[in-house]
Amino acid sequence: MGKKKASKATDYNFDNIVAPATAVGAGAIGIIRLSGADVITIADAIFTPYQHSGKKSANLKGSDSYKLIFGKIADSVLIDECLAAVFRAPNSYTGENSVEFYTHASSYIMEKVQRMLLDISTRLLKDGKISSPLRMAQAGEFTQRAFLNGKMDLAQAEAVADLIASETESSHSIAMNQMRGGFSKELRDLRQSLLSLCSLLELELDFSEEDVEFADRQKLTSLLTTTYIKIKDLADSFALGNVIKNGIPVAIVGAVNTGKSTLLNLILGEERAIVSPIQGTTRDTVEDNINIGGTLFRFIDTAGIRNTTETIEMMGIERTWQKLKESTVIILMLDATREASFSPSLSSIAEKIDTKRQQLIIIANKTDKLASANCVQTLEKTIKNCCKALELKPKSIIATSLKKNPTESKVRTESVLSEIGKSFSSDIQGKTYVTNLRHYQALRDAQSSIERVFAALDANLPTDLLAQDLRQATDDLGSIIGEISSKDVLNNIFANFCIGK
Amino acid sequence: MGKKKASKATDYNFDNIVAPATAVGAGAIGIIRLSGADVITIADAIFTPYQHSGKKSANLKGSDSYKLIFGKIADSVLIDECLAAVFRAPNSYTGENSVEFYTHASSYIMEKVQRMLLDISTRLLKDGKISSPLRMAQAGEFTQRAFLNGKMDLAQAEAVADLIASETESSHSIAMNQMRGGFSKELRDLRQSLLSLCSLLELELDFSEEDVEFADRQKLTSLLTTTYIKIKDLADSFALGNVIKNGIPVAIVGAVNTGKSTLLNLILGEERAIVSPIQGTTRDTVEDNINIGGTLFRFIDTAGIRNTTETIEMMGIERTWQKLKESTVIILMLDATREASFSPSLSSIAEKIDTKRQQLIIIANKTDKLASANCVQTLEKTIKNCCKALELKPKSIIATSLKKNPTESKVRTESVLSEIGKSFSSDIQGKTYVTNLRHYQALRDAQSSIERVFAALDANLPTDLLAQDLRQATDDLGSIIGEISSKDVLNNIFANFCIGK
Repeated sequence: MGKKKASKATDYNFDNIVAPATAVGAGAIGIIRLSGADVITIADAIFTPYQHSGKKSANLKGSDSYKLIFGKIADSVLIDECLAAVFRAPNSYTGENSVEFYTHASSYIMEKVQRMLLDISTRLLKDGKISSPLRMAQAGEFTQRAFLNGKMDLAQAEAVADLIASETESSHSIAMNQMRGGFSKELRDLRQSLLSLCSLLELELDFSEEDVEFADRQKLTSLLTTTYIKIKDLADSFALGNVIKNGIPVAIVGAVNTGKSTLLNLILGEERAIVSPIQGTTRDTVEDNINIGGTLFRFIDTAGIRNTTETIEMMGIERTWQKLKESTVIILMLDATREASFSPSLSSIAEKIDTKRQQLIIIANKTDKLASANCVQTLEKTIKNCCKALELKPKSIIATSLKKNPTESKVRTESVLSEIGKSFSSDIQGKTYVTNLRHYQALRDAQSSIERVFAALDANLPTDLLAQDLRQATDDLGSIIGEISSKDVLNNIFANFCIGK
Repeated sequence: MGKKKASKATDYNFDNIVAPATAVGAGAIGIIRLSGADVITIADAIFTPYQHSGKKSANLKGSDSYKLIFGKIADSVLIDECLAAVFRAPNSYTGENSVEFYTHASSYIMEKVQRMLLDISTRLLKDGKISSPLRMAQAGEFTQRAFLNGKMDLAQAEAVADLIASETESSHSIAMNQMRGGFSKELRDLRQSLLSLCSLLELELDFSEEDVEFADRQKLTSLLTTTYIKIKDLADSFALGNVIKNGIPVAIVGAVNTGKSTLLNLILGEERAIVSPIQGTTRDTVEDNINIGGTLFRFIDTAGIRNTTETIEMMGIERTWQKLKESTVIILMLDATREASFSPSLSSIAEKIDTKRQQLIIIANKTDKLASANCVQTLEKTIKNCCKALELKPKSIIATSLKKNPTESKVRTESVLSEIGKSFSSDIQGKTYVTNLRHYQALRDAQSSIERVFAALDANLPTDLLAQDLRQATDDLGSIIGEISSKDVLNNIFANFCIGK
């Protein structure tokens, strides 16, 4: 079976493979997974089902697929009593014969069972009882086989790794849509429409001596534009898709000693950044991820902004501006007791912020040091007026004291962030987002190829040049779902998986 | 069902429970495990099997036990596509109805599925569709239920935790023997013979006014002695059993600058201890475990022994003697170029070593600095003569240079250790070793109780006093297999398990 399917990636090695499929560490059950033509024979050589009345068979070969069999693994001594299950080709994850052992999760037992399988398969091979050796699986090799055996396309296979790694609702949602084939279908449709145009152009080439134009240049441009826009939208979705996968970047900025690190520690619930009353305590940017309301945020504590001659601190401030540029959310910290600093702080932000792309939250800290509640109201009004003058539209202005009311401060800040997160998440449901750099690059390549076709059309260049670039664009799209891919690309993709998947 | 069985530990809460059964981390598959009367109903509320031709049922309730069902978990959106299996009481690990989900090992998916189960069970309970709530399982609670439902006794249940934690062949072998009930059977036999003696004595008490002696005092002493010796042997096996479970302690001792830390690093294959040509570099004892030939060894690098006035170093040397006393294997390092130091080094070891219990390996290091091969032979002869004079019987004398021939030195040392390990392991097969402190203490308690019986017999004390101590001894043994145990003891035992087992 393997040989026939291997055409997708020539000289792929379809030996029998084995690997643990569960994480290493304190757990109750460990899974050892085998895939390949001979794995049922190999598994039977170490596993003996316990006999029950009404049982069909004394080995796995005679057992039904998808049936959990209780038995023992033993050589000269008993190694474990465990469950095992057989999955027969093509109705398995990999599309090949597969066996899974569900052992006690002892590191000794799991290693010993794998060693027994490897040893016994050498003997079985020598005795001619199996036709290929058994070896340890490479990272991602089970899913690679699922792809090579036609159980899923390449984009779906890649989504499996994203799904396993997903830590939030949003990243899970994108990965699940991709694994279910939503993304692949869009790509296939786009590729199909490009292929139709290609065929028309190539037909022209066949009749080139007769100087006919099968493809109406006007209509071709119009069709191509529609496809181009769809490809561009997908490529553009990477910016957001990537942000959702890796965390929405939130930069905490502001003058020195406004409480930026205190806010970070408050939100992360631990002493992540060093806090001290000494101005300029934070030099490196401190980053950490946290899940708020189902969306992952990546918090970036930055060096406080002030005029300084200290070299390391200056470098820190330089990085603050850089981080601010890369962020989706900016939290500006103000010191409520330094009203004179509001306007300069806000205007330096107003200079740097991209209001279309970036959300602003303003926190006026240290309200406990103000004389009265009236002062807090005045404070808020002052900030609002400042913002208006600078054409800043903050998502929220929170006047609070991180020190006196930490819980309230945390809850109010998180609630605004959670709202921002939700506006991202609600966009995601059912829609396609590109989260994979390889896909993004392929889409951008396809875009460039089509742009060359537009240029050629404008310049009235010959049909064969048009056809060539169009063909290139279809190949670029095909590479995402694995219809065109080299062995190197494949190995590279699956190497990022964990072992056992 | 729960209510009836709960008699072993009154007021144990038999609610439905759920927990992950696989380790957290990078893995392909994560298992979520449920146990309790209502768990099939609860699982059906979030899981929908995919329909195949020939399939029996559209839910888990209608599915065969031990059958892996492919389906989906969804609320308003799809959460995962995964396998699920049902195990019906009493044919499950816990003896109750159980369900296992085999999901993608994403932390998001695993948390979400557990949350869905908890949420939906609240609704099902309110609607009267299930009779007990679902809650997160405590550590070890699945195995605790297996014990409470009579699937295994307490010693077997405890062995499950040891089996999961086993990292070497030896610790695995002991745990497996205990889990298979070898230990329990011995205890039950011992307890039975004590119980027979008790019955005889109590019969006497019933007829006490008639002044008969049903139990021949001579015969009673003889029977009791046999039982006492067996209990003592079991308790004594703890010393070795514990050593095998936690690693055979190997102390590396010797004068300063003989290469002790170099040897440790060589065997561990990493720079674990700081090595420098400065005498007295090692002050703390450095310890680490390594598996050699299937046996776990715990290496202890000690401070070099010399006359010193430096306080910290003196404390280090004090600890060296302490560690030497606790070790099963002592590696004495000699400096081949300092022949004058051999005799004092060896005689200080001869003073401290317990030759019955402890094995000695002598390594004469730095042979590269000797003039010729002849010198090496002379060296070995000198050491042998020294040993003879001091009545030391080293397991091996290795003359080598750790610096010039590291690999050879490592292989030779490990081969001696491996041999020592094997002599331990070969003792283990099939025999019972006590590895659990609780069991050890119960056995020692039983010993003391029987010793009181002996004393009472010697002093010709009345039968009721004999019977009382004998009853106490049977209770001590019973507590190991869980025939007598309080709720506190039970909770304490299972709290040391991992969650999900």
